Amino acid sequence: MDMTTADPSDLRVGWIGTGRMGVAMAERLARAGVRLTAWNRTIAKAEPLKDHGADVCGAIADLRDRHVVFTMVSASADLEHVLLGDGGLLADPGHVPGIVVDCSTVSTETSVAMREACEERGVSFLAAPVSGNGKVVRAGQLSLVVSGPRPAYETVAHLLEHIGKSATYVGEGDTARLVKIAHNLMLGVVTQTMAEITVLVEKGGVSRHAFLEFLNNSVMGSAFTRYKSPAFVNLDYSPTFTPLLLRKDFDLGLAAARGLDVPLPVAALTAQLVQASVGTGRVEEDFSILLDLQAAASGLELKPENVAVDDGLGPASVEDPS
Amino acid sequence: MDMTTADPSDLRVGWIGTGRMGVAMAERLARAGVRLTAWNRTIAKAEPLKDHGADVCGAIADLRDRHVVFTMVSASADLEHVLLGDGGLLADPGHVPGIVVDCSTVSTETSVAMREACEERGVSFLAAPVSGNGKVVRAGQLSLVVSGPRPAYETVAHLLEHIGKSATYVGEGDTARLVKIAHNLMLGVVTQTMAEITVLVEKGGVSRHAFLEFLNNSVMGSAFTRYKSPAFVNLDYSPTFTPLLLRKDFDLGLAAARGLDVPLPVAALTAQLVQASVGTGRVEEDFSILLDLQAAASGLELKPENVAVDDGLGPASVEDPS
Amino acid sequence: MDMTTADPSDLRVGWIGTGRMGVAMAERLARAGVRLTAWNRTIAKAEPLKDHGADVCGAIADLRDRHVVFTMVSASADLEHVLLGDGGLLADPGHVPGIVVDCSTVSTETSVAMREACEERGVSFLAAPVSGNGKVVRAGQLSLVVSGPRPAYETVAHLLEHIGKSATYVGEGDTARLVKIAHNLMLGVVTQTMAEITVLVEKGGVSRHAFLEFLNNSVMGSAFTRYKSPAFVNLDYSPTFTPLLLRKDFDLGLAAARGLDVPLPVAALTAQLVQASVGTGRVEEDFSILLDLQAAASGLELKPENVAVDDGLGPASVEDPS
Amino acid sequence: MDMTTADPSDLRVGWIGTGRMGVAMAERLARAGVRLTAWNRTIAKAEPLKDHGADVCGAIADLRDRHVVFTMVSASADLEHVLLGDGGLLADPGHVPGIVVDCSTVSTETSVAMREACEERGVSFLAAPVSGNGKVVRAGQLSLVVSGPRPAYETVAHLLEHIGKSATYVGEGDTARLVKIAHNLMLGVVTQTMAEITVLVEKGGVSRHAFLEFLNNSVMGSAFTRYKSPAFVNLDYSPTFTPLLLRKDFDLGLAAARGLDVPLPVAALTAQLVQASVGTGRVEEDFSILLDLQAAASGLELKPENVAVDDGLGPASVEDPS
Repeated sequence: MDMTTADPSDLRVGWIGTGRMGVAMAERLARAGVRLTAWNRTIAKAEPLKDHGADVCGAIADLRDRHVVFTMVSASADLEHVLLGDGGLLADPGHVPGIVVDCSTVSTETSVAMREACEERGVSFLAAPVSGNGKVVRAGQLSLVVSGPRPAYETVAHLLEHIGKSATYVGEGDTARLVKIAHNLMLGVVTQTMAEITVLVEKGGVSRHAFLEFLNNSVMGSAFTRYKSPAFVNLDYSPTFTPLLLRKDFDLGLAAARGLDVPLPVAALTAQLVQASVGTGRVEEDFSILLDLQAAASGLELKPENVAVDDGLGPASVEDPS
Repeated sequence: MDMTTADPSDLRVGWIGTGRMGVAMAERLARAGVRLTAWNRTIAKAEPLKDHGADVCGAIADLRDRHVVFTMVSASADLEHVLLGDGGLLADPGHVPGIVVDCSTVSTETSVAMREACEERGVSFLAAPVSGNGKVVRAGQLSLVVSGPRPAYETVAHLLEHIGKSATYVGEGDTARLVKIAHNLMLGVVTQTMAEITVLVEKGGVSRHAFLEFLNNSVMGSAFTRYKSPAFVNLDYSPTFTPLLLRKDFDLGLAAARGLDVPLPVAALTAQLVQASVGTGRVEEDFSILLDLQAAASGLELKPENVAVDDGLGPASVEDPS
Repeated sequence: MDMTTADPSDLRVGWIGTGRMGVAMAERLARAGVRLTAWNRTIAKAEPLKDHGADVCGAIADLRDRHVVFTMVSASADLEHVLLGDGGLLADPGHVPGIVVDCSTVSTETSVAMREACEERGVSFLAAPVSGNGKVVRAGQLSLVVSGPRPAYETVAHLLEHIGKSATYVGEGDTARLVKIAHNLMLGVVTQTMAEITVLVEKGGVSRHAFLEFLNNSVMGSAFTRYKSPAFVNLDYSPTFTPLLLRKDFDLGLAAARGLDVPLPVAALTAQLVQASVGTGRVEEDFSILLDLQAAASGLELKPENVAVDDGLGPASVEDPS
Repeated sequence: MDMTTADPSDLRVGWIGTGRMGVAMAERLARAGVRLTAWNRTIAKAEPLKDHGADVCGAIADLRDRHVVFTMVSASADLEHVLLGDGGLLADPGHVPGIVVDCSTVSTETSVAMREACEERGVSFLAAPVSGNGKVVRAGQLSLVVSGPRPAYETVAHLLEHIGKSATYVGEGDTARLVKIAHNLMLGVVTQTMAEITVLVEKGGVSRHAFLEFLNNSVMGSAFTRYKSPAFVNLDYSPTFTPLLLRKDFDLGLAAARGLDVPLPVAALTAQLVQASVGTGRVEEDFSILLDLQAAASGLELKPENVAVDDGLGPASVEDPS
C-alpha cells in the first residue's frame, strides 16, 4: 500500500490485541476520532471500544487493507501468530497493510524476524514498545519509543501522540527494543534503591509516607516513584509486575550488555537482588517485595502505615479527554 | 518571642546567607511580599534583593528580633559561626528570634548541636535542607524536607511554599538531615544507572539525546534526569556538583546506614564507583564524569552530540513569579 | 568391555590429546608405569611420551580396545569430534573401550551429549575436569573433580592419583562440570580481591612482594595466590588465562546459577569487572590485568618491582617423580 | 637497653597477655627453649606455661628489664593500659625493655600512639599482628606480619619463627596493621564466595563435603578454606569469629581505603552482605552464617551433612614440637 498519498486525518487504522493495556491504548485512539477497527482473540474484550466510535471485526484478515495496524499482544509467540500464522495479517502477501506498529514487549530476535517478514512483503514495520502500565495509559502518561523506517514513523507520529503523552524516535531497525530493556533495568535499580533508602530513613525514625512524599516532590521524583509509593507505604503487593517478569528483563538487559561488551555493575548487582526475591518463592506478588527483603536484611519489621497515598495517576487524570 | 499570636501575614523574616542558592531562595520570599531583611558576610551579594522589596542589614544582630530567621550557609562551621559566634544570632540569650529555619547542608552532629543551642534559649529550630541547585530554585522547583517542632513548622509552612514547590514535614528532631542524605544516595545511584544504560544503548546504535529524551518522557523521568541530560548528551562537565561532594554524601549515607544497621548493597557499590571517579583526578568537574568511566570500561569513545537539550528548567520557568 | 575382571595394574590405557596440559598429564601416567598409548592430531607432540615408556599410535581407532581412554582436548567441538567423528573412538559401536575419562573443559551440554553417546554403546563416561595449568601439572599439584558412574570412578581412581595430587568424586552425571565452573568463579573473585587489597596496601606504603609474601604464608594463601604473585609483583601479564576465557567461565557460572535460581552477588559483580577488563582491549594478556584496572581506579601508577618471587611450582617440584 | 650486643640465644623475653591466643603463642616460645617470663591479669591463665619452662611474674614491672617483651591483648585500650597505665611496661622512662613486639589486633591510631610512646623512651616498637586463631597457633601455622625498625625485626626474627610458621617484614611504621586489615577483607570475601558457590553446586546436586574436599585440594584451597569447611558441611556455627567482629574489620578496611582513595568494589559489597548477616540478629554465632543467608536467598534449606571433615589443623599438627 502506498502511504505517501495518505492524508493523515484519513488514515484507516487497525488494532490487534485488546488486553488490559491494548484496550486502553486503542480507546485513546478512538476517542481522538481516529477511524479504528479492532480485533481480539476474545472478541468481548474489544466490544467496549464501540462506545468510543471504533469498529470491531471478527477476523485479522479484515485489517489487511488498513493503512496502519497496531499490535499489542502478550509475548513473542503471539506476535508471530497474529502476523504470520494461519489467517494472520501478513499471510496473504498480495494483500497487506502499509505499516505495522508493534507496541508489545517482545524479544529482539522476534522483532528482527517480524521486521524481515514485513520488509519482504513491502510493509513498513515499527517497533514501538511502551513505558507504563494500564493505569498509566488511562492517565494519559504513556511513553512510546519507536524505531524503524523514519517515513513510517512520521506517518504515524500523530497517532502515537493520541495514545500517550510522547513518542520518541530513536533510529532504524529494532533499537527501540534495546531502549525499552534499558529503561526496565533502570526501573529495577530505582526500586531497589527506593527500598534501601526507605528502610534507612524508617530505621532513623521517618515514616515511609513522609519520606516518599518528599522524594516524589524532589528532583528525584518520577511518575514511577509516585505510583510505587502506595505499595511501599501500605505494603500492598498486589502485582503490577512480578519478580519473575523483572528478572526476565534483567536477563535480556544483561545479555544485551554482554553482547555489546558493556559492563553494568549496578544493574548486575540489582539483578542478583531480584533473583534473591525470586528465591523467597513469592513470585506471584509485586516486585515491590524488594522492600521486604531490604527490611529483613536490616532487622526491621515493616507494618502497613494505612495512609492514603497519591499514585499520581488519579481520577483527575483518568478523566483527561486527551 | 511568643509566636502563637503572630499573624502569618505579619511575620517579620530574616535571612542569613545569600550565596548562589540563598539569594535565589530569598528573592522568592521577597517577591511573594514577605517582609524580609537579609544579611550576608559579603554584603554586595545581598544588595540585589532590594530590587524585590527586601531590606539588607549590616549585622546579624539586627535580625535577633525577627519572628523567623532562615539560614543558608556553606558548611557546618559557618552555621555554628552565624548562630553562636561573636555577634551571632543567638549570642545574646535574652534577645533571640522565635524560629530558626536552617536550609544548609550540614552534618547531623551540627544539626543536633544547633538544635540544643536553640532549645536552651527558647528558640524553635527547624532543619530544612533542600533538593535542587540554584537553577532549580529559580525554576520554582525546589523541594524542602523539614524536621523539628511541629508548631514551628506550621507557623512557617506558608513561607516554605513561597521558596519552593513543596515542603514535607517528616517529624521531630534532625531526621530531615537523614532524609536529605538518603535522597542524595539515590541521586548518585540514578546517575550511575543513567551512565550504564546510556552507554549500553549507544553501543547498540541509539544516540544519547534520543535515548534520554525517551527516558525523560517515560515513567522513569524526573526533574533530575532532565537536568542531567545536557551534560550526558554534549559532554559538558562544568560542575554543578563534584565527585568529591558526592563522595562526601555517600560517606554520610553509609555511615548513617552503618549506625542504623542497614545494609545498602546498591548504594555501597555506587560509592565505590564514585570513588573510582575521584581516582581519575578529575575532581573539579561535574560528577557526570561517571559517564566517561562507564564508556571507558565499555571500550566506547564518547563524542559530544552537539544537540540542544531541554534541561526542564527553562526561561519560562525562571520567569515564573511563583 | 567388561571392566569388573580387570586387574588394576593390568589396565591398558589410551590417551587422546597431547597439547600443553595433556602431554604433561599423560607423562605422569607413563612415568608411574601405566601401560599407555597416546594419540594426537599432530603426532609430533605425542612423541616425547615415548621417553617415558608410552606408545604412540597413528589412529584413534587403535585405542578402541583399551580398558580406559582419557581425553584432553581444547573445546567441546574437539571432544565431539574425537569421540563421534569419522574414525572416532565410539564410531564403531561394536568395538569400544570400557571407560572414557574426559578431562577437557567442555560445556555441560556437550558433557551430557557425550555421556549419552557413551551409555548407548555400553561405555562408562566420567567427567573429570581439572584445576590447574601445565606448570601445576608438572609440579604434581593438579586436582581433578570427577562425576559419573561410581564403579567406573573406582576403577580409574588409582590412575587419577598418578596424574595429580587428588581426585574428588562428587556424584553421578555431569556435576563435575558445575563444580569446575564454581571453582573458576572463585578464581576470578580471588584475583579481583587480591587486586583490591594489593593496591590498598601499596598506596599505604607496602611493597607488593612483601604483602603477597605475607598473604601467601597466611591462612588465606593458596597454590593459586602463590602462582599469581609473580605477575602481580613484576607486572608480567604473559597469558596463562585471558580475560576472555575468564569471562566465558563467568558466563557459564552465571547461567548455571540463573538456571538453579541462585543469586551470586559477589561473583556477578566480579563478572562485570572482568567485562570492564575486556573493555580495555587487552584481551591477549593475562587476566591479572585486573590489577591494572584497580590501580587506575585508585590513581596509582604501578611499576614492576623486579623481585624474584616464588610461584610455588618450582624446579624441585617439577622433578618430583610423583 | 642496648640490643646490639645481645647474643640471640641469650635474649631474655617477656610476655604480656596469655589469653587463648597468647598462651598458645607463648607456649611455642617456651618449648623452643626461649628464656621467657609471662604476665597476665588473671595469673592462673599463665600458670600452664611453667610446664614448658617459662616463668610467671606478678607485675608487669618485672618485665621492664627484658630485651624483648611481647604483648598479646584484646583491644586497643588494653594495650595502652599495659604499656602506659599505672605500673605499665613503659611507666618508668629510665627503666624500659629494648623492644616491644605487639601481636594484638589494635587500631592504627593506637599503634601509632604506642610507637611514639616507645620511641620517646628509646624503645623499638614492632607491630606484628597475626593471621590465624588459637587452633592455628597450636598447629604451628600462624603467620605474622611485621612493621617497624628493621634492626629490631632482625633481632627478634628467630623468635617469631618459633611462634609461627612465618613472619613477613613489610616496612617501617605501622603498615603491618593495614596489611592485617587487608588480609581480613580477603577472609570475608572468600567466605562469601564459598557460600555462593557451595550453594550453587548443592542446588546442582553436589554435596557440600564433596565440593569442599575438591576445593580444598584444588589450587584455590587454603588453610582458611580448610578450617572453615567443617562449619559449612555440618552447619556448626560455634563462633571462631562473629559477624560483628568481621564487620569491624570491614569498617577498618573501608575507612583505610577511603583515606587512601582506593575503591574496593568487591570488598564493599561483601561488607553489605556481612551487615545483612548482622541484621539477622545472630551476632553470637560464627560469621559462617553467611552460608545460611546465601541458602535462604536461593530458596534452599540446608541440612547438616554429618560427615567428618578434616580442618587441616589436626592432632598430628598439634603435636608438632616446632
